Amino acid sequence: MPYVLRKLPVPVYGTGLTLGLIKNKLSELEPAIQVELNCVKPRTSVQLGVFNVEFFRVSHSIPDGVGLGIHTPLGLIIHTGDFKIDQTPINGEGTDFHKIAEMCKDGALLLLADSTNVEKEGYTISEKEIGEIFKQIFRTATGRIIVTTFASNINRIQQVIDAAAIYNRKVCIVGMSMEKVTTMASELGYLTIPPKLLISVDELKHVPLKRTVIVTTGSQGEPMSALTRMSMHTHKYVKISSGDTVVISARAIPGNEVSISKTINNLFKLGAEVVYENVSEVHVSGHASQEELKWMFNMVKPKYFMPIHGEYRHLVHHGKLAQKLGLAAKNVFIMENGMKLAITKEKAMIAEKVDAGQILIDGKGVGDIGTVVLRDRQQLAQDGMVIVVVTIDRQSARLIAGPEILSRGFIYVREADELLNEAKTRVKNLIDELVKDGTANWPAIKSGIKSVLSKYLFDKTERRPMIFPIIVEV
Amino acid sequence: MPYVLRKLPVPVYGTGLTLGLIKNKLSELEPAIQVELNCVKPRTSVQLGVFNVEFFRVSHSIPDGVGLGIHTPLGLIIHTGDFKIDQTPINGEGTDFHKIAEMCKDGALLLLADSTNVEKEGYTISEKEIGEIFKQIFRTATGRIIVTTFASNINRIQQVIDAAAIYNRKVCIVGMSMEKVTTMASELGYLTIPPKLLISVDELKHVPLKRTVIVTTGSQGEPMSALTRMSMHTHKYVKISSGDTVVISARAIPGNEVSISKTINNLFKLGAEVVYENVSEVHVSGHASQEELKWMFNMVKPKYFMPIHGEYRHLVHHGKLAQKLGLAAKNVFIMENGMKLAITKEKAMIAEKVDAGQILIDGKGVGDIGTVVLRDRQQLAQDGMVIVVVTIDRQSARLIAGPEILSRGFIYVREADELLNEAKTRVKNLIDELVKDGTANWPAIKSGIKSVLSKYLFDKTERRPMIFPIIVEV
Repeated sequence: MPYVLRKLPVPVYGTGLTLGLIKNKLSELEPAIQVELNCVKPRTSVQLGVFNVEFFRVSHSIPDGVGLGIHTPLGLIIHTGDFKIDQTPINGEGTDFHKIAEMCKDGALLLLADSTNVEKEGYTISEKEIGEIFKQIFRTATGRIIVTTFASNINRIQQVIDAAAIYNRKVCIVGMSMEKVTTMASELGYLTIPPKLLISVDELKHVPLKRTVIVTTGSQGEPMSALTRMSMHTHKYVKISSGDTVVISARAIPGNEVSISKTINNLFKLGAEVVYENVSEVHVSGHASQEELKWMFNMVKPKYFMPIHGEYRHLVHHGKLAQKLGLAAKNVFIMENGMKLAITKEKAMIAEKVDAGQILIDGKGVGDIGTVVLRDRQQLAQDGMVIVVVTIDRQSARLIAGPEILSRGFIYVREADELLNEAKTRVKNLIDELVKDGTANWPAIKSGIKSVLSKYLFDKTERRPMIFPIIVEV
Repeated sequence: MPYVLRKLPVPVYGTGLTLGLIKNKLSELEPAIQVELNCVKPRTSVQLGVFNVEFFRVSHSIPDGVGLGIHTPLGLIIHTGDFKIDQTPINGEGTDFHKIAEMCKDGALLLLADSTNVEKEGYTISEKEIGEIFKQIFRTATGRIIVTTFASNINRIQQVIDAAAIYNRKVCIVGMSMEKVTTMASELGYLTIPPKLLISVDELKHVPLKRTVIVTTGSQGEPMSALTRMSMHTHKYVKISSGDTVVISARAIPGNEVSISKTINNLFKLGAEVVYENVSEVHVSGHASQEELKWMFNMVKPKYFMPIHGEYRHLVHHGKLAQKLGLAAKNVFIMENGMKLAITKEKAMIAEKVDAGQILIDGKGVGDIGTVVLRDRQQLAQDGMVIVVVTIDRQSARLIAGPEILSRGFIYVREADELLNEAKTRVKNLIDELVKDGTANWPAIKSGIKSVLSKYLFDKTERRPMIFPIIVEV
C-alpha cells in the first residue's frame, strides 16, 4: 500500500480493521505520506462518480472483510474479494446472504469471484473447528505451547487467546509484526483479550512453562523469524526442548515448503512435539471451495463472469465451473494482469491492454532493477566470478604486470593452484600474441581473455563463472 | 551410483531392472569404471560373510523392487526398501506376504521400514486405478495427448502404452532419459510394447494429432525439460495448442511446486487442457500409508524398530506409530545420517558416529566446493558485486588513475551515474588521505575502500554488494 499510494495518491475506503492494517504499513515506510482514509461499514455505500459502491460482509481468515456491490449505469457488478461461506464464524459475522440475495434478486451484470480454492471439492471447514482442535491440544499439552500463524489472522489469534484463558495459560506475543497487529486489533475491538492474560517476554521466565503460550510468526520458515530462530536454537528468549508443543497454524505458501519442512524437522530434533496441517486440522483456508463458489455464482446470477484471485489455472477451472452451472463459454472472461474488460449494453469484450506487471523493491530501490541486473545475479549465483587483472605498458603494449586472478563463488582457491596457474599462463600467452605488433587493441584483448578463460575453465570444471578482464594501461 | 562406486568399488547385487538402470547411469559418466554387478531374483539369497541376505518382492512405483531379509547370528533384520502394499499390482507381482510371514513367524530382531507416507491415513491407492483414469482421458480427449512422468516410473509408462493401444494412438517417447529407460526396460521385458505402436519424433507430423500420445519428462517443471519447453512454446517439434491434453502424472517433489505451477499455467495459456494431481487422480504414490505400515510392523513383529526413508519428522511419526502398536519407546531408534545402531544379544544402542553428509557435485567437481564458496555465491546472488580499480604510483604513493568502478547484479548502471560518481569521489578522497605521508599501506587502502563503499552504498540503496578493491602499483 505505501508504494502504490505514493505513486497514486487517491482516497482509500476500507473497514476499520483494514484501515488499521494500512496505517501500520504506512508508518513503516519513510518518508511518511498523507493519505485520505475513509472508514466504511457493511451495508452502507459510497457514491464515486457514476458508481454507487455498496459493501457487504464476507467471511475470510481475517475479520471485517467486505465484498463490493458496484451499481453502474449498465447494471450491478459484484466483486467478492477473498471470501468463504463460514456457517459458524468466530465473531458471529458471516457472509451476508441476505444482502447478496437482495442486491441480486434480478441477477447481476458481472461477477468477479475469488478462485483460490476452486480445485477443492465440497466446502471449506469453519474457522470455529480450529478452536476445538486448539482446546484439545491445550488440554493435553504437558509443557509450553508455541503457536505460529500469520499476524493478520486475527480470528486464529483470538482462538488461541480463548483456549489459553480456558486452560489457565498466560499468552506472550513474540515478534514485531505480531505485536503491532494484535495491539491495533485489540484497541479497535477486533480482538478480545481478558485482563492480565498477556505477559511480556521478560515475564516469561517467572511463569512455569506449562502455564504459558507463545504466539509468534514464522509459519513459512522465514529465515529471520522467531520460530526459525527457535528451531535453530538461536532465539534469545525461547529455547525449545522436550515437552514443548509447537503448533504451525498456517498453510504453506507455494515456494516455502522446503524451509517450513526444515523448521519442523529441526523442532522435532530439539525434542518438541510439532503439530502441523499434514497431521492435524490446525489450519483452515479462508477461501471458498467448489460448493461455495457454486452458491455464490447462483446467488448472483451474473450475465458475465470474470474469475479473479488465483493463478491462471485456477481462473480456468473457475471459468469451467461457471459453464457447468449454465453460463455460455463466450460470457466467461479469463483475464491476465493488464487486460481490460469493456462492457456495453449489448456485449462484453476484452479491450486494449494497459501496462501492468511487477515492480521489484530491493532495498531502497523501487523498480530500479530490471532483467539485466537479475540475470547477472543469477549467473553469479550459479558459478561465481573470476576477475583477471593485467597491466600493459602504454608505449610498448607489453604486459608488465599480471595476470592476477581473483575469484569468488567459483572454486576453492587453495586447492585450485594448478588450474589458476594454467589459466594465468593462457591469458599471458594470449596477450603476448595479441600485442606482438606493438599495439594494444583493448576490446580484442578483453574479449580474447573472456573466450580463452571461459573455454579453459569450462573444459576443466564444467562451470561457467562470469569473467571480468580488467586492463590497466600505464 | 557412479560417484559412490568410484570411491567404493564394491560388488553390487540387484534385480534385473535395477541393474539395467545402474548400467545406464554408469554409461553416462566419464571415465568408465568396472563394476561387478550380480543379478538376483526374489526368493533367492546370497551369503555375504556371516550374513545371509534373502530377497523378497515389494510393490513400488517401479517394477522389480525387493526388500531384504538379513539373517545374522543375532537374528533376522528386515529392510523394506521403498514399498507399498498394492493389492492389484500392474505386473501381477505384489508385496510377497507369504515370504515375509514365513521369515518372520518368530518375529525379527530389527525392522527398518519406509516412512515417506507415514503422515497419510489409510491405504495408498493401487497403481492399477491410474490405468482406469488414463483410459477415461484417452476415451474423451479429442486431440493430442501428452503424458509426463518420471522416466523410472515404468508401470506408469506401461499403462500409457496400454491405453494408447486400446484407443488406437501411436506413442512417441520424447527426451533422452525417457528414451534410454524405455528402451532398456523393453529389452529386459519389463515393458511390453505392441509392434508398430512406437513412432519417432520425425514421424509425428505424419500422424493426425488425435491419433498420437507423447510420453516425456518434465513433471517437476525442470527448466530444460521437454515439457517446460513445450509450455514456453520453444520446443522444436511439439507446439502446444488448443485441443491438446497434458497429463502430469507425478507428485510435486518439495521445492518444485512453483516451477510446476508455472508450467501448468503456461500450458493453460496456450489453450491446452491440463490434468494434474490436484484435479484428477492421475498419480498415486509408491509408498505405504499408515495402515500398510501397521501391517508390515505387525507382520514382522520386530524387537527393535528403526524408521527409515523420509524426513526427520516422518521418522518421528513412524516411531510413534510403532509405539501405538505396542513397542516400547526405548526400542525405537530415530537415526540421523552417520549414526550407528549397535545391537548385542542383550540390547540395542546408538553407538559412535561416523562421518556422513552431502557432497556437492558441481560441473566436474565432486566435493570441491564448500561452505565458503557457496556463501559467496549466495551473497553475489543477493546484491551483486562492485569492483573498484585504482592505480597508485610506486614512488609517490599517489593515485595516478582511477578509481574505476564496475558492477554486476547491483544496480542498473545507466541510471546510477550520480551514485557511482559520488562513490568514486569518496574512494579518491579516502586514498588521498591514506597516502598523504607518501607511503601506501595496501591492506589499509583495501579495507578502507571496502568499508567506505559498503557504508555509502548501503545508505543510498540498502543493498550490500560484494566489494572488490583492486590496487595496481606502477
